[in-house]
Amino acid sequence: MSLNTTACREETLQPFKLYGDHRSGNCYKVALLLSLTARPFEWVETDVMQQSTRTTDFLEMNPNGRVPLLQLPDGRFLAESNAMLLHLAEGRPYLPTDVWERALVYQWLFFEQYSHEPNLAVARFLVKFLDREVEEAERLKVLRKQGSQALGVMDKTLSSSPFFSGGRFSIADIALYAYTHTAEEGGIDLSPFNAVRQWLQRVESVPGFVSMAQACG
Amino acid sequence: MSLNTTACREETLQPFKLYGDHRSGNCYKVALLLSLTARPFEWVETDVMQQSTRTTDFLEMNPNGRVPLLQLPDGRFLAESNAMLLHLAEGRPYLPTDVWERALVYQWLFFEQYSHEPNLAVARFLVKFLDREVEEAERLKVLRKQGSQALGVMDKTLSSSPFFSGGRFSIADIALYAYTHTAEEGGIDLSPFNAVRQWLQRVESVPGFVSMAQACG
Repeated sequence: MSLNTTACREETLQPFKLYGDHRSGNCYKVALLLSLTARPFEWVETDVMQQSTRTTDFLEMNPNGRVPLLQLPDGRFLAESNAMLLHLAEGRPYLPTDVWERALVYQWLFFEQYSHEPNLAVARFLVKFLDREVEEAERLKVLRKQGSQALGVMDKTLSSSPFFSGGRFSIADIALYAYTHTAEEGGIDLSPFNAVRQWLQRVESVPGFVSMAQACG
Repeated sequence: MSLNTTACREETLQPFKLYGDHRSGNCYKVALLLSLTARPFEWVETDVMQQSTRTTDFLEMNPNGRVPLLQLPDGRFLAESNAMLLHLAEGRPYLPTDVWERALVYQWLFFEQYSHEPNLAVARFLVKFLDREVEEAERLKVLRKQGSQALGVMDKTLSSSPFFSGGRFSIADIALYAYTHTAEEGGIDLSPFNAVRQWLQRVESVPGFVSMAQACG
C-alpha cells in the first residue's frame, strides 16, 4: 500500500517535458494548453536556428527532427503539435465530446497544418528571423497571398460563430491562434479580417490564457 | 413508433456523398475507409485541373476550395481528408481506443499532411499531371529530397513494427499509403526503403483492401 502510494506520488511529480523553440507558434500551442490544463511542464529550449533538432541525440527522440517534441511523464515521446493538442485535451473541456463538434475540431487542425501554418509561419520566419524580405520576395508574395486566403476562410466561419467548433473555445482555436496573432510579423495584413481580429481578442480573454512570451520558456 | 422506423430507414438509405478527383490520393484515403467499413457512398467526380473546386457552388460547400469534401447523410459538409478518416473510423477497428496508440495515430496523420504529402503528392502532380519535369527541375529536386526524408522516417518506424500504431492496421496506414504507393510516379525512388516496400504489401493484403482505381469513381 505504501509502495503504491509512493509510486503514485512519483508519477504525479514527474512533469511533462516540452522541447521547443521559444519563437515557434507550434511550440506555443502546446505550452498554452499545458498551462490552461494546469499541468506542470519543463521547457527545454531547442534552438531551430542552431540546428539543435538535427543532432544525433535529438533525432533519436524524434526521427523527423522537429520541435515541439513532448516527452510524457512515462518517458515516451510524441511529435506533431496538433497531435499533442488532441492527446492532452482528451477528457478536458477543450476537446468536444459531441462527434460532429469533434469532427470540426479535426477539420480545423488539419486546415491549420496544411493551408495556414505553411504560409503564415514560413512568411514570418523568412522576414523576422532570416531577414530575407528582398531575397525571397517572390516566395513571400505567394505565401502572403495563400496566407490571406486562409485568413479569409477563417473570417467566413468566424462571422457567424464566436469560435471554430460548437460555439466554444477549443484546441482548434489554440492551434489557429498561434500563427494568426503573429501574421503581421510576416507581412500579412489582418485589417481586412474583422471577424478574425475580434476572435483574437476573444481567445486572449479566455480564463487562464497566457501569451507566447509567458508560456514558452 | 412506425414514424421512427421510417425515419431510421430513410437515414440508413441516404448514402455519404464524396466529392473527389479520381487522381487524388487524399480522396482515395476516404473512399478506401468508406469501402473497408462497408458504408455505401456516392462519388461525385470533381476535376481539380478544371478548377471545379473553385466555382461559387463548390466554395459554398467548402470555402477552402479543396477536395475531398464529404457530405454526411444528414447533409453537413466535412473538409480535410484526415479529419474524415478520424470521424469515420470512430468506434471501428481502424482507430485505436488505447490513448497512447490513438496519440500515435494523430501524430502520423499530421506527419502525413505536413512532411509527407506536400512533397510526394506535389512532385507527382507536377510530373504526372502537369508534365513539368523540366520547368520545375529545381522545385522537384527539393520536393524529392524532402519526400525521401519523410520516407526515411517511416522506414525507421516500420523496421520494428508492421504498422504505424499498436502493431495493427489503422487510419494512419491508410493516410500514409495513399501517396507512398504512388511515390515513383513523382520520381521518388522507393528502392532504398525496404521496410516501407514490405509495408505497402501488407496494406494491400488487408481484408477488404481496394485499389485507387477501384475505390474512386
